[in-house]
Amino acid sequence: MKIGGKSYRTLWPTPQGDAIEVIDQTLLPHRFATRRLADLDSTIRAIKTMVVRGAPLIGATAAYGFAMALRADPSDAALGDAFERLLASRPTAVNLRFALEATRDLVAPLPPSQRAAAAWRQAEALADEDVDLCKRIGEAGFERIEAAYRRTGRTVNVLTHCNAGWLATIDWGTATAPIYLAHDRGVPVHVWVDETRPRNQGAALTAFELGEHGVPHTLIADNAGGHLMQHGRVDLCIVGADRVTARGDAANKIGTYLKALAARANGVPFYVAAPYTTIDWRIDDGVRDIEIEERDGAEVTHIQGRLSNGELALVEIGPSGVTAANPAFDVTPAELIDGLFTDRGFCKADKASMAALFGR
Amino acid sequence: MKIGGKSYRTLWPTPQGDAIEVIDQTLLPHRFATRRLADLDSTIRAIKTMVVRGAPLIGATAAYGFAMALRADPSDAALGDAFERLLASRPTAVNLRFALEATRDLVAPLPPSQRAAAAWRQAEALADEDVDLCKRIGEAGFERIEAAYRRTGRTVNVLTHCNAGWLATIDWGTATAPIYLAHDRGVPVHVWVDETRPRNQGAALTAFELGEHGVPHTLIADNAGGHLMQHGRVDLCIVGADRVTARGDAANKIGTYLKALAARANGVPFYVAAPYTTIDWRIDDGVRDIEIEERDGAEVTHIQGRLSNGELALVEIGPSGVTAANPAFDVTPAELIDGLFTDRGFCKADKASMAALFGR
Repeated sequence: MKIGGKSYRTLWPTPQGDAIEVIDQTLLPHRFATRRLADLDSTIRAIKTMVVRGAPLIGATAAYGFAMALRADPSDAALGDAFERLLASRPTAVNLRFALEATRDLVAPLPPSQRAAAAWRQAEALADEDVDLCKRIGEAGFERIEAAYRRTGRTVNVLTHCNAGWLATIDWGTATAPIYLAHDRGVPVHVWVDETRPRNQGAALTAFELGEHGVPHTLIADNAGGHLMQHGRVDLCIVGADRVTARGDAANKIGTYLKALAARANGVPFYVAAPYTTIDWRIDDGVRDIEIEERDGAEVTHIQGRLSNGELALVEIGPSGVTAANPAFDVTPAELIDGLFTDRGFCKADKASMAALFGR
Repeated sequence: MKIGGKSYRTLWPTPQGDAIEVIDQTLLPHRFATRRLADLDSTIRAIKTMVVRGAPLIGATAAYGFAMALRADPSDAALGDAFERLLASRPTAVNLRFALEATRDLVAPLPPSQRAAAAWRQAEALADEDVDLCKRIGEAGFERIEAAYRRTGRTVNVLTHCNAGWLATIDWGTATAPIYLAHDRGVPVHVWVDETRPRNQGAALTAFELGEHGVPHTLIADNAGGHLMQHGRVDLCIVGADRVTARGDAANKIGTYLKALAARANGVPFYVAAPYTTIDWRIDDGVRDIEIEERDGAEVTHIQGRLSNGELALVEIGPSGVTAANPAFDVTPAELIDGLFTDRGFCKADKASMAALFGR
């Protein structure tokens, strides 16, 4: 998608093929800057510090990091070490495991001398595939937005949480793909953008990318969504997911579950947009079995923003020394989800429908 | 309650009785400072800019402002004008209307020369009464915290939203009164403090006042409460209210409704703490009939905090020029509320129970 009129992906290999460049998402929306990642350590650091974030983008970045690790040392020991370290860099995203396992399974049987190049090609393929998956998710969701427009004859109000936008993927996004398609095809759409505390990905990233693409949107505090739904001001909710279980429970950014409860209480359809790579077929009960990453409490007590002079600054909002807890995700049970927008099309959030759609 | 070991109320008359002093709550938790309010205009400004906030404190402040207006001009015209301007300073709080009507009804029949002094005495009485009401609310809620402790034998985890603490009242607080009583009486209690975006009253005020009093607490993003309840980490929720309808619908800070939905979905009791002055007997359907104040979007896009050098600064979190919506309150329907802690004791959130308790 576009930034300042120029088309970008969130990640691209250098022309020499010796490193990748990524958009530094910790600086958005205040500064646009890219970072060069040329080895395993810098890749892990970029994932941990959320220079790159979003399950699909994390997966592709990790695959490139894996390839760069194998270029430095293609031995079995180094392969195993890189796999484990990358896997541990963010515990919740299943795409990360998927990308790493796919790469490992491909390269482990090869002679060490061929591993790095094969892993690099695999990373490129994963990135290209992600763009295609997102477009297809967009088509599945577009139908619902268009149907809402046909039913009401007015602008369709979509609420989204966090950033499951193109910045979270390679391009298009997951939750935003249907929105971009609707907008581009002339279906009037307006997005309620949840700020998404504590890291403000909605305010910083979703508002930024929708604005750059020209999609009408309004930033709201995370607290406001229930009130808006209660008063008929939301037609549908679309969120992404970091992991979807075999029966359709969805782990997504903390606070998603609260919006799903409000949607159900107010008859607002609640959809989860996710590619097949996000589905973890090994587990059913997401509330019980998905490990929730506990991040540093400083993300709650300190907020980054732009001073009036344009400089970036970190401000502390609570009393000095206050203790904060920071669970990064929550799990929305399948019964609150009205359907999944996937790369294979629409499907209900239940085990039979998901198994049927994905041929399992 | 105490700040730095010294007992305070949030509002007190000067020794000369010519003005009031209040704690400037816009500077907390970063600075402790008081402001002198000596006339109608400064009182209205203090209410509008949230130097004073919280329904009971707003009511008492407005009563003093009314008295100061009558000292400047005790005519019928000035009386009517002061009443209307004070009433318009915050549209949601019913205590404001209550305090103003009580004062007007008392002083309007008096000769102009006696009005200012009578209004001042009325304001003092309202402030003293508020302290008493809050203590009694505390007793009603204390029973529930103690019962949870007896049942579980471990620290009782209470979640609260916004600041219905002593800083929102004259002393004790509403939602916090049961917590302070429990803590002081040796019932182990820990409070999950919702940050409460956009104005961060939880992070800035509730965490501050609990900390000064020594009550264990943990700051969380507003988004986290659903997850915590899903995992059994909250024993009860206690919130305040800006207005409670005759059938028990409760208007409170935006986001309260989301917590009530999560509490119900997870079997966590959800209580509203409020004095009789908060009950608006004129209306039943709060979702339909309570006017929700829409505040400046800049409260969402800009956050005040403390830089690492201790200076206060305002940072902007979204893209420049982003539009934000900022509904300040939402309404939790009575069916999600497990009971009210009032100055008359505990009562169910339904019309018959409330009418019986309050003898209406």
